[in-house]
Amino acid sequence: MDPVSDRTRLRREPERGSHDSAVIRAVIDAAPICHLGYVDRDGRPVVIPTIHARVGDTLYVHGSVASRTLRRLAEGIDVCVTITNLDGIVLARSAFWSSMNYRSVMIFGTAREVTDPAEIDLALDAIVEHTVPGRGAELRRSTPAELRQTKVLAVPIDEASAKIRAGDPNDDPADLDSPVWAGVVPLALRPGEPIPVAGLDPSIGPSPSVEALIADLR
Amino acid sequence: MDPVSDRTRLRREPERGSHDSAVIRAVIDAAPICHLGYVDRDGRPVVIPTIHARVGDTLYVHGSVASRTLRRLAEGIDVCVTITNLDGIVLARSAFWSSMNYRSVMIFGTAREVTDPAEIDLALDAIVEHTVPGRGAELRRSTPAELRQTKVLAVPIDEASAKIRAGDPNDDPADLDSPVWAGVVPLALRPGEPIPVAGLDPSIGPSPSVEALIADLR
Repeated sequence: MDPVSDRTRLRREPERGSHDSAVIRAVIDAAPICHLGYVDRDGRPVVIPTIHARVGDTLYVHGSVASRTLRRLAEGIDVCVTITNLDGIVLARSAFWSSMNYRSVMIFGTAREVTDPAEIDLALDAIVEHTVPGRGAELRRSTPAELRQTKVLAVPIDEASAKIRAGDPNDDPADLDSPVWAGVVPLALRPGEPIPVAGLDPSIGPSPSVEALIADLR
Repeated sequence: MDPVSDRTRLRREPERGSHDSAVIRAVIDAAPICHLGYVDRDGRPVVIPTIHARVGDTLYVHGSVASRTLRRLAEGIDVCVTITNLDGIVLARSAFWSSMNYRSVMIFGTAREVTDPAEIDLALDAIVEHTVPGRGAELRRSTPAELRQTKVLAVPIDEASAKIRAGDPNDDPADLDSPVWAGVVPLALRPGEPIPVAGLDPSIGPSPSVEALIADLR
């Protein structure tokens, strides 16, 4: 990792920032999706939400070979991948000092189309594993026809920074005698009860990976 | 609203898309944060997570006057604001057909710095109301010094589209006899127990807006 490039230098509130690789990896791994930004041919920005997975210092995303976005990215253009875990609403005693708790990462890099079949397998397996650990082993392998319809892109995680806010609100000292409640309302993505697909054989219960996912998120 | 510009035409999976203003507004309002993309002076994309609020067909974001991002945006450059509500993990009987349920919106436009004090008030009030309805009325007004430290930007919501996936997984017909469970694990941002700020007078309980927020998200 290039710890502090000009782009990832933390200008605002540097106390919230980190270039620590373990911190960056943990924030990436904790989020189910990322937001990937690129510049379209007309020079205007585009931001798309997509599933990702990390293997070492590489971030993988995937999609249809027919996707306009993926075709553009496969040209090897610059991207910014931003990953945000929202952890809570921070309620200060004033609007000005109210905030959010979050763990976010920004990755700046160049997308590379993955063409090696072994790396494509690795990336697609990682994306399934990232979303529902253990699910891949419960499913059949993708067919050659499915793989031909899938494009995989890799972004190196070498120009990246994390920004984290946690804990109590800050308040203007003049507000500390305010009679209003202040604190944090924690937020997390939680699972509801699993909904079987229409027509599923009622004797088939959620598989171990689904049970484990729900237990993990609950 | 310009219903279908060249940029917002839904190319992939158009059955998931909508240019309906009511749908777009509902998706924007349901999300606590957005991801705002822009092109930096060096031509490279940047994506930042930020709180937003919608008033009519205008999206407002805010930040510190010292923010490099907000200073860049105030130049009136193109932005893409993407808002994503993640609603569930869609578990098909194969990795290829597995997916996510989500409601997302992409807004393409040009950021405008808000300089009219009345519109700044409106925008900041809307941002508090968007995050915690009713909270603004419980708090003191921002001071002139605080307002001088705050920059507000407006993005018109006139070139926008929604994309929504809901419901069951699709499956390859050949997989319908698979013995593996398939369905949806719903996801939603849920609140934990509110955590009072250190040193809060123990006789001060969560205010009505905080109680209502938790009840609403639970």
